Amino acid sequence: METGEQMIEVEALWELIDEMVVPSEACDVPVTDALGTITAADVVGPVDMPPFDHSAMDGYALADSGLEPCTIVHEVAAGNVDAGVIHRGQAVRIFTGVPLPQGTHCVVRQEDCLVDGNVVRLGEDAEVSNGTHLRRRGELLKKGAVVLPSGTDITAGAIALLTSCGITKVPALSQPVACHISTGSELVEAGGVLGAGQIYDSNGPMMQALLDARCTRLVRQRVPDVASELHSAVAGFTGDLLLISGGSGPGDHDHTGRALRDAGYTIHASRINSRPGRPLIFATRGHQVAFGLPGNPLSHWVCFHAFVTRALARFEGRDIPALVNAHLTEQLPSGGDGRRTWTPARRQYRDGMLYVVPLGWQHSGDLTPLASADALLMNRQDPATHLFPTFIL
Amino acid sequence: METGEQMIEVEALWELIDEMVVPSEACDVPVTDALGTITAADVVGPVDMPPFDHSAMDGYALADSGLEPCTIVHEVAAGNVDAGVIHRGQAVRIFTGVPLPQGTHCVVRQEDCLVDGNVVRLGEDAEVSNGTHLRRRGELLKKGAVVLPSGTDITAGAIALLTSCGITKVPALSQPVACHISTGSELVEAGGVLGAGQIYDSNGPMMQALLDARCTRLVRQRVPDVASELHSAVAGFTGDLLLISGGSGPGDHDHTGRALRDAGYTIHASRINSRPGRPLIFATRGHQVAFGLPGNPLSHWVCFHAFVTRALARFEGRDIPALVNAHLTEQLPSGGDGRRTWTPARRQYRDGMLYVVPLGWQHSGDLTPLASADALLMNRQDPATHLFPTFIL
Repeated sequence: METGEQMIEVEALWELIDEMVVPSEACDVPVTDALGTITAADVVGPVDMPPFDHSAMDGYALADSGLEPCTIVHEVAAGNVDAGVIHRGQAVRIFTGVPLPQGTHCVVRQEDCLVDGNVVRLGEDAEVSNGTHLRRRGELLKKGAVVLPSGTDITAGAIALLTSCGITKVPALSQPVACHISTGSELVEAGGVLGAGQIYDSNGPMMQALLDARCTRLVRQRVPDVASELHSAVAGFTGDLLLISGGSGPGDHDHTGRALRDAGYTIHASRINSRPGRPLIFATRGHQVAFGLPGNPLSHWVCFHAFVTRALARFEGRDIPALVNAHLTEQLPSGGDGRRTWTPARRQYRDGMLYVVPLGWQHSGDLTPLASADALLMNRQDPATHLFPTFIL
Repeated sequence: METGEQMIEVEALWELIDEMVVPSEACDVPVTDALGTITAADVVGPVDMPPFDHSAMDGYALADSGLEPCTIVHEVAAGNVDAGVIHRGQAVRIFTGVPLPQGTHCVVRQEDCLVDGNVVRLGEDAEVSNGTHLRRRGELLKKGAVVLPSGTDITAGAIALLTSCGITKVPALSQPVACHISTGSELVEAGGVLGAGQIYDSNGPMMQALLDARCTRLVRQRVPDVASELHSAVAGFTGDLLLISGGSGPGDHDHTGRALRDAGYTIHASRINSRPGRPLIFATRGHQVAFGLPGNPLSHWVCFHAFVTRALARFEGRDIPALVNAHLTEQLPSGGDGRRTWTPARRQYRDGMLYVVPLGWQHSGDLTPLASADALLMNRQDPATHLFPTFIL
């Protein structure tokens, strides 16, 4: 028996994926295009943050804490190049974010000031201790400090932080390029007319949407159940992640395993003790990764979330998807045969707890539960807590 | 005092948003572009699903439940137009998803069959009751049945479901078109050189990323603190949602409120009992909606998640963001002045419970917590449960 032909557990496939999938190469990405990528190195700040001493409030800069009336000598507004100098007994009109005049001791909020012409008196609540309502250059981040450590998910907040430091390019792991091949002579592209025995290909558009939502580039193909056509498509694949829908079983018309082998792929697993997903191929060729996924749409969706997202996370350098324990809102139908069984589910948060509503499915061709699923539930109840391991999608 | 000048509570602003923001117009969207939109009407199936009787397994179709050996008379493979007819005593080789020969009583899985030449005998585990391993035309959805009800979020799973029914266009609420204006004479676009008193505009790139992640189109502008320039930008706005960064307070250099009024907007609120967010403008002009948001990046981010996403949800026809109760991993610093105070936070799931880790911030110019925030926490502890209301981002 060739390696990869014996039935393996779900956890063993996860270990294979972790071991065989290598993070993509790092490249410099414009910060404006970096949303959803992972930093490939520590990102160091080129300037102090904030870049200059400035006021935290609209109000008046004072040169000392004396409570005597002060004379307003000038005003500093946003964009002013020169904030000037302030001396004892003087006040400078100032606004949030603007540079401090030399000699500033504190800023008093305008609502704590009584202004009469060019004279400022301080109200009872005015705070005048040294440094009040001032922000000092470099108090958030010193020049040369790490702004984002290696391995950070570049969120919208991270983009704001990088931009505020003047960083326009960031070392990030490049996104893998994926290809999805729907196999099946019965498949018709949406919009076509169905002949006898034909159905629409829904796995291709579904995978396009799943990868669009992750900002992963996908090329789609459709090939009939003809070994030579699948072989050509597989052999010519130049991207990182190849997803083949259908034909992964041992049947007479299942060409996926042979096509991968003939194209130089090593098959590491082809039968998983998982429902859906018993016929599922995991293979590699150098750094390239291929999955042969079940063609039934529900199985296809489940195996994407249970296995393919883990490979994507490895490519992208992000944390692998973690199972979390959830309460069930209703009992699962008892499975019985010991296979790990997956159920699409919908999250609910109640009273500080995570519940999931299992979305019943009639059989693996049933797509109706997928529309509202945002979790994926495994039928392995923890005997002590009665909780169920769940992927948050 | 003009309407909108008095301080209002957070909940009152939410009510104003719910009342004033009207869902966008419906339009027909190609299913392949519909990810993340909401259906504007019930979507009805144009065909039965599945479209024809077919086999659920690779195996043999039988004409009755007789256990005698059967003769294999032909084979039906994927894409075959004519599945033929089957008679008593005959078997037809058949594969998952292919049409059934006329007269099929059940399908027996190939692993339950003993095949010798063109003769099939049944193993002990073979199930042969009427209908076993068959899928009947229309058993999932009848032609004319509702595939997706009005108001459904079009997920990848929904796209698969629609496509499998041959639906290529779907009535969906159109996405609002947004414009973000960063005001401030001190702002420099990332990549430029900072002069004295200047800082980089991080709110524009942050908002671009926040709206990219929601598939909302955004146009960005930057204008100095000059009333006439802001007025031109606001008056000429033709989209749905106008977001203005900075200048929303009552200060001498705060032009946002005046620019909106002069351009024909009605200001419904300008002071919210919220930290950050006390100066925040909510205004409308016909169906157009404008927010004047605080210019401090952390405040900007918080007010987007606390208020703007609610307006987006109303435009898009989706459920308004709901606060859920979460456990805190550590105590919040006590606030004191009664204002609703928001803290960026990070989710953790442990033992079936939802925790959030508050991400400390030094002040409202501090961007460092935003990079890893995926929740937004409000300082209003439930006295009975000690839980905190939280937005899941």
